Amino acid sequence: MTSRVAIIGAGPSGMAQLRAFESVRNTGREMPEIVCFEKQADWGGQWNFTWRTGLDAHGEPVHSSMYRNLWSNGPKEALEFAEYTFDEHFGRPISSYPPRAVLWDYINGRVEKSDVKQYVRFNTVVRWVQYNEDTQTFSVTVHDAVENRTETSEFDYVVVGSGHFSYPNVPEFAGIETFPGSLRHAHDFRGAEALADKDVLLIGASYSAEDIGVQAYKMGARSVTFSYRTKPMGFDWPKGMREVPLVERFEGSTVHFSDGTSGDFDAVVLCTGYLHHYPFLPSDLALDSPNCLYPDGLYRGVVSEANEKLFYLGAQDQWFTFNMFDAQAWFVRDVILGDFELPGPEARRQDMDAWLQRFRGLNGPADEIRFQADYIRDLIDLTDYPMFDLDEVVRIFLAWKHDKQVNILGYRDAVYPSVMTGTMASVHHTPWLSELDDSLERYLSEPEPDDVGNLVDSAGSAGSA
Amino acid sequence: MTSRVAIIGAGPSGMAQLRAFESVRNTGREMPEIVCFEKQADWGGQWNFTWRTGLDAHGEPVHSSMYRNLWSNGPKEALEFAEYTFDEHFGRPISSYPPRAVLWDYINGRVEKSDVKQYVRFNTVVRWVQYNEDTQTFSVTVHDAVENRTETSEFDYVVVGSGHFSYPNVPEFAGIETFPGSLRHAHDFRGAEALADKDVLLIGASYSAEDIGVQAYKMGARSVTFSYRTKPMGFDWPKGMREVPLVERFEGSTVHFSDGTSGDFDAVVLCTGYLHHYPFLPSDLALDSPNCLYPDGLYRGVVSEANEKLFYLGAQDQWFTFNMFDAQAWFVRDVILGDFELPGPEARRQDMDAWLQRFRGLNGPADEIRFQADYIRDLIDLTDYPMFDLDEVVRIFLAWKHDKQVNILGYRDAVYPSVMTGTMASVHHTPWLSELDDSLERYLSEPEPDDVGNLVDSAGSAGSA
Repeated sequence: MTSRVAIIGAGPSGMAQLRAFESVRNTGREMPEIVCFEKQADWGGQWNFTWRTGLDAHGEPVHSSMYRNLWSNGPKEALEFAEYTFDEHFGRPISSYPPRAVLWDYINGRVEKSDVKQYVRFNTVVRWVQYNEDTQTFSVTVHDAVENRTETSEFDYVVVGSGHFSYPNVPEFAGIETFPGSLRHAHDFRGAEALADKDVLLIGASYSAEDIGVQAYKMGARSVTFSYRTKPMGFDWPKGMREVPLVERFEGSTVHFSDGTSGDFDAVVLCTGYLHHYPFLPSDLALDSPNCLYPDGLYRGVVSEANEKLFYLGAQDQWFTFNMFDAQAWFVRDVILGDFELPGPEARRQDMDAWLQRFRGLNGPADEIRFQADYIRDLIDLTDYPMFDLDEVVRIFLAWKHDKQVNILGYRDAVYPSVMTGTMASVHHTPWLSELDDSLERYLSEPEPDDVGNLVDSAGSAGSA
Repeated sequence: MTSRVAIIGAGPSGMAQLRAFESVRNTGREMPEIVCFEKQADWGGQWNFTWRTGLDAHGEPVHSSMYRNLWSNGPKEALEFAEYTFDEHFGRPISSYPPRAVLWDYINGRVEKSDVKQYVRFNTVVRWVQYNEDTQTFSVTVHDAVENRTETSEFDYVVVGSGHFSYPNVPEFAGIETFPGSLRHAHDFRGAEALADKDVLLIGASYSAEDIGVQAYKMGARSVTFSYRTKPMGFDWPKGMREVPLVERFEGSTVHFSDGTSGDFDAVVLCTGYLHHYPFLPSDLALDSPNCLYPDGLYRGVVSEANEKLFYLGAQDQWFTFNMFDAQAWFVRDVILGDFELPGPEARRQDMDAWLQRFRGLNGPADEIRFQADYIRDLIDLTDYPMFDLDEVVRIFLAWKHDKQVNILGYRDAVYPSVMTGTMASVHHTPWLSELDDSLERYLSEPEPDDVGNLVDSAGSAGSA
């Protein structure tokens, strides 16, 4: 009997899994039956922007944490698919840091071309997954939100691609219930326009804080204050932006920090990270991990130690993204097809322990990036996914880190060559800091001379345009 | 073997069910084993205020839709428990429209006295309920969020008390994704302070819109605009408040209405109601109904037509609240204890049809209130819950409706006598419109003469204090 594979989520990970199977289907080989369950009305996961916050039209938690004005915060050359290049998709060079809609267009383009949308059941949320020892299958119960109907069916394999940047980690702060201003977690942040002329506090010191803070500055916030728990980001912030230690307590609109200082704020965004949360899985199957580069319990970063027919994609903290998901999805495909024979539990445990030992010894971003590059190389070596120059990607990441240190407001104006094709990215027609139109149309347009702002050199000093 | 009852939710409905069983337990009779699952850390349901929005600390949808400044929007005399009066709880008269914290104190006081907290498993969310035909039991799978552990156990009966004012109904509006200001559903509204000096648009014409609009006015909004779909609320709005027809489209901060007018807004609150949503139930057991006074498929408003061992509390739209939940809970208790013998499915269907026929013929609020009073009377007649003068409650509701027509900003300063004890409510020390401290302490205090504002007569003209 044909085996059945359930893929949970049609975001970048699920799309990679669909594409991985499709690349073998094209060879004429018999394939398992694949059903991908996606609770949103379209695919793209995080990249499928919604204005909604909290709960969606069907009462389900909103998946995407993106905001209107989000642009890639890492160079696109570091996430390029090895088997579907930016050159192939756009037919011409584009810049290294495209806005959200442009990246969505790219990842959508690959799978549209592959004709895999037929396997996706949209508006369908996975409610509960249960493994049956006797039949060695998973009972997967889903709710079709359009038909308002639940149903259960059996699968031999389950691939969890629902991600771990959708369920906010929201700590308690003393007195926060008295704060009268705008208060939300970064997950529910949808745009910085309303922060103009506001005193804004961002609690956190990672990517969300950094980027929402820079967005707030771009949109004309009166001041931007970052509050860190362990250490400041330490960028060369312009006037009006500063870093302070952790919040001790709120007292109405006044916030007191652990160094004894305080400030009054109009808006607070909690940039306090996300939870690994899998409400559709029993706790013995659900990955329970902090956000890190090597969650324990996943052989080769994907095979669940609790059940070797259960897989997770993209469960790692991410320097690498799209091409890492590809490497994982190709490997998972080969495990399911039997092209890669899983070693026994003990050998898997030893392999995990070896990686975990190296992971625990990592010292700083450069180390981490190389670690993840090696992890991906290890996976690609086992499949037919096209190998690419991972060392060159590491170099691009390090240059990006350097660019941010030099100019946190202007790093997105830098350009890099494609690792896949060698094509040099083009300098965008408008510096990021003065570009207020984030649409695909504007991005791909060639504006009249009047519209063209200054380019890279002046970006850092442009201020809010 | 002792039968087992699962109660889902420890809000006013679940608390009523716990109290109903406890009142029989006190007679020494053998009782079923009761487990109440509550996903929040404390009981009170809607009345357990949280500053959080969207998802809670454990990644679960936030239950309560209440805001800091919420005061009862109906007279407390209409919701008083027949078996635990305001007199008994407070020991002296209080006003007719207490703030949130005062009502929470009241409902908490009854069950604290009853020592039923031992049956509640807090921080425990019900994930999935499945009925097994062979064992005639429900397998209830829950997730203990503190222990991060799922477990499944069998129950003979399930009482759904999770309510239907927690999952927002959020329609789509053309262009809404371009609105740059503050945008949220009433479910995520936590206070009107930040609406001071703002132009505020409330979409909806029911209780949420009415009360959030009045809150915004109280807190100094520059203007308050209500947008209705079918008909305006028609209150005698003060200067700065107005009603317009439905939103046609958003264009940035400009909103166009169906009458061709438009306006610019800083903040939008979607007061568009709530969904009956039971993500833990298969669709054949989940109530599927609009918000109405007599959802089809519930015999006597509580017994599921799909499964006679499954009950819903408070599933109706609500004029009556706490004492209606009591009437329902006492009846459900008697069904479970076998003190009330359920008629067969056909007789139940006929009973439902008779009520539905009357329900469909209702014409306006007075009709609706009398209908719900009769529904409650019918239930109380079947149990030992103390009967009370439901016609008098109807009169209070009608007086309340009248008061609101006369002065939507001052109706909360009116007082009514208790239907249960005859005690006349006291006039609060400060008119609602000038009372900015909503705490229990302030409410129960006797302020110094300096602090005392004017009373009922001047409330309507006080403006934003």
